[in-house]
Amino acid sequence: MKRVGLIVAYDGTNYCGWQVQPNGITIQGELNRCLSELLGEEIETIGASRTDAGVHAMGNVAVFDTETRMPGEKISYALNQRLPEDIRIQLSEEMPMDFHPRYCDSVKTYEYRILNRRFQIPTERLYSYFYHYKLDEKKMREATSYLIGRHDFASFCGAGAQVKSTVRTIRSVEVERFGDMVTIRISGEGFLYNMVRIIAGTLIEIGNGQYPPERMQEILDARDREWAGPTAPAKGLTLLGIQYE
Amino acid sequence: MKRVGLIVAYDGTNYCGWQVQPNGITIQGELNRCLSELLGEEIETIGASRTDAGVHAMGNVAVFDTETRMPGEKISYALNQRLPEDIRIQLSEEMPMDFHPRYCDSVKTYEYRILNRRFQIPTERLYSYFYHYKLDEKKMREATSYLIGRHDFASFCGAGAQVKSTVRTIRSVEVERFGDMVTIRISGEGFLYNMVRIIAGTLIEIGNGQYPPERMQEILDARDREWAGPTAPAKGLTLLGIQYE
Repeated sequence: MKRVGLIVAYDGTNYCGWQVQPNGITIQGELNRCLSELLGEEIETIGASRTDAGVHAMGNVAVFDTETRMPGEKISYALNQRLPEDIRIQLSEEMPMDFHPRYCDSVKTYEYRILNRRFQIPTERLYSYFYHYKLDEKKMREATSYLIGRHDFASFCGAGAQVKSTVRTIRSVEVERFGDMVTIRISGEGFLYNMVRIIAGTLIEIGNGQYPPERMQEILDARDREWAGPTAPAKGLTLLGIQYE
Repeated sequence: MKRVGLIVAYDGTNYCGWQVQPNGITIQGELNRCLSELLGEEIETIGASRTDAGVHAMGNVAVFDTETRMPGEKISYALNQRLPEDIRIQLSEEMPMDFHPRYCDSVKTYEYRILNRRFQIPTERLYSYFYHYKLDEKKMREATSYLIGRHDFASFCGAGAQVKSTVRTIRSVEVERFGDMVTIRISGEGFLYNMVRIIAGTLIEIGNGQYPPERMQEILDARDREWAGPTAPAKGLTLLGIQYE
């Protein structure tokens, strides 16, 4: 028996998110199916981030246990032959048996992309949120300063989440503009449900001038989801990678 | 009666190319249908570049004549409401009645994108050609020097083209690498059928070390399609824009 870790990239457009569910095709479901076929035993993967429907990934992490004699690092090649073209393993390797992708300490990095121009660019439509009103990325950047560090992010927690504590630590937030594309890159030691998308939605309300940057502190202090901006659409979000410490 | 010019962006993935054809959905067909519905008269657009199936555009140009009283610059907004989400008008404006997008002198700029890494990135799969073997972009850049200027590009003309002359002028070719993405950007006063894709396929054979950069001169001199590399896949190609002189 060995434990194998996978770095998984996917286009989330056509999936009902990561986690296996009875109705609908999921990333985890496709991985389990293709791994079970490849290795001839029933495989169940465990994912680090159970991304929502429509969210993309460059580097989600999954592990599974197997009896196979195939070397861990070869599994990526064989598995990519079977997976649909919108899921691609970037790396496979053997891991210690006590490695768990959710319970081991890690820093996750997400990117939220906003296409900010007068008209949509069709080839960007699946991987960014099209926003027509002019965004001031300097104001957005100023607002992010309030988010860095350990805070109670209750205002940025989506409804339906069942968590003991809404305190989380954000390591860094960067806002950049490349031409018409505004990107928000955020790293932290774990995130609440929809937290990155609610932060993005709030930063958009600050970037468009509806609220000043200091509003971010008031929203944090309120500890109330109603104070923050809307949950920005899933298709703008990509899980870039996960660093284990 | 007035003539209206359009700058048209599209994701070519789901189209049988630009030009109207009896079997299959085309960009021109969708434009004609949506314009006719919008303006209440039968509209036939004329396109600058009749891109192939699967080729994308940021700035193709089309014109049509209409009796409408709607101001030319307002048509973009109204038309975008009706078009499918993978076609978006970037600009509409009234043009002189003698403007013709193909017969007026212009410089077209195309970009060919090659994702050059070990494994495919799913979110790039529709808008680049995935190429696994290592490409040396310096060798590719060196090879492009032979292409600049006025030459007989018969070796780079796809089969089935009916042209009087295969002499064309290339203004510039740039090869850049951004991380794993190698881009070829090429500007010229008109191109032969599949010319950019054959140039890309040839540059790949030079970038992977199969031929030296000087091979490009021999291929030009041969004036024979069999000497050049394969036609690179359509999905890597985007018409960036057209400059009228």
